Amino acid sequence: MTTDPFAWTQSLNTLFAQVWNKLSRGVHDRHAPARHPTLATVDAGGAPQARTVVLRAADKAASSLRVYTDAQSHKVAELRATPAAALHVWDSAAHLQIRLATSVAIRTGKDVSDIWDKMPDHARLAYGSAPAPGMPVPEALGYRKTPDPHAFAVLDLTIDSMDVVHLGPDHRRAAFRRDDGWAGHWLAP
Amino acid sequence: MTTDPFAWTQSLNTLFAQVWNKLSRGVHDRHAPARHPTLATVDAGGAPQARTVVLRAADKAASSLRVYTDAQSHKVAELRATPAAALHVWDSAAHLQIRLATSVAIRTGKDVSDIWDKMPDHARLAYGSAPAPGMPVPEALGYRKTPDPHAFAVLDLTIDSMDVVHLGPDHRRAAFRRDDGWAGHWLAP
Repeated sequence: MTTDPFAWTQSLNTLFAQVWNKLSRGVHDRHAPARHPTLATVDAGGAPQARTVVLRAADKAASSLRVYTDAQSHKVAELRATPAAALHVWDSAAHLQIRLATSVAIRTGKDVSDIWDKMPDHARLAYGSAPAPGMPVPEALGYRKTPDPHAFAVLDLTIDSMDVVHLGPDHRRAAFRRDDGWAGHWLAP
Repeated sequence: MTTDPFAWTQSLNTLFAQVWNKLSRGVHDRHAPARHPTLATVDAGGAPQARTVVLRAADKAASSLRVYTDAQSHKVAELRATPAAALHVWDSAAHLQIRLATSVAIRTGKDVSDIWDKMPDHARLAYGSAPAPGMPVPEALGYRKTPDPHAFAVLDLTIDSMDVVHLGPDHRRAAFRRDDGWAGHWLAP
């Protein structure tokens, strides 16, 4: 038995498993660092955009993640044009950075009505806004939020690759790729 | 006198001032949320990339920020090709998201030797790696870190615009732009 709390950094297998532990914790624990990752996209002008999102699901078998958003938001327009997103988590207690390169599918309408139907009223308030999110309003509260199933979008993120860094007494960095079955290899940090 | 800890969310002026308070705290307090923002860039394939950085300076008068990096890192190559970066801070205690659109100048060599000369030895270890950061290594610790002034780069981020969101009993969102003197206007959140 080791007492090293960072023993999981020693091998590619255990590092990869820890990434999925952290992502799963993000879905189930509202205080976990992976609960609120940063989602980066590219806008119409070719510039990067980044914002906090809430992690809703993590499927290790499929190597996919799920996020909800207002279908009228800028990020959805950006993802329709460039369906690639980087998802970033910094877990300060674990000294762990997780960077995910993903391909994004946008699902709306009947395709996600099963999720909408099970959502409580207070949660539905996040989807449906007049004017749309990011549009100018004459004063701070000059908008209305009205739950609208047509404004509900699910972003399904298929992970293509991971870049994982642990900052310890020795730094370790590894890359994992879907196309080699997530075997992984070490990188210089 | 108000006792509302979020009174600063009520006006554009106080919201803007709070953004700069938070950025300054990030420079001076290693435990502040703005100490470790996420920097997003666009890579050669047009995909977004995001990683944690350390905020080294914040100049409100010039509306600029500063970050250090290894000159051989991928982010420097990305910024040479596309000199735009998004800087993102999520301050969970303040329920505040700060999103900054910036133009980036990369400074190296003699131009930054004054900073290098004042840097303690242990800090210099972050700049200079063989192989370069992000390159494959045969085992986890198969790299050497040797301080190298030629591997030290300063990223000067000139802020072009801000998108600021406060999630409270009422959500508030505002945009601030350099080209209107940071007067700001409200957006639908």
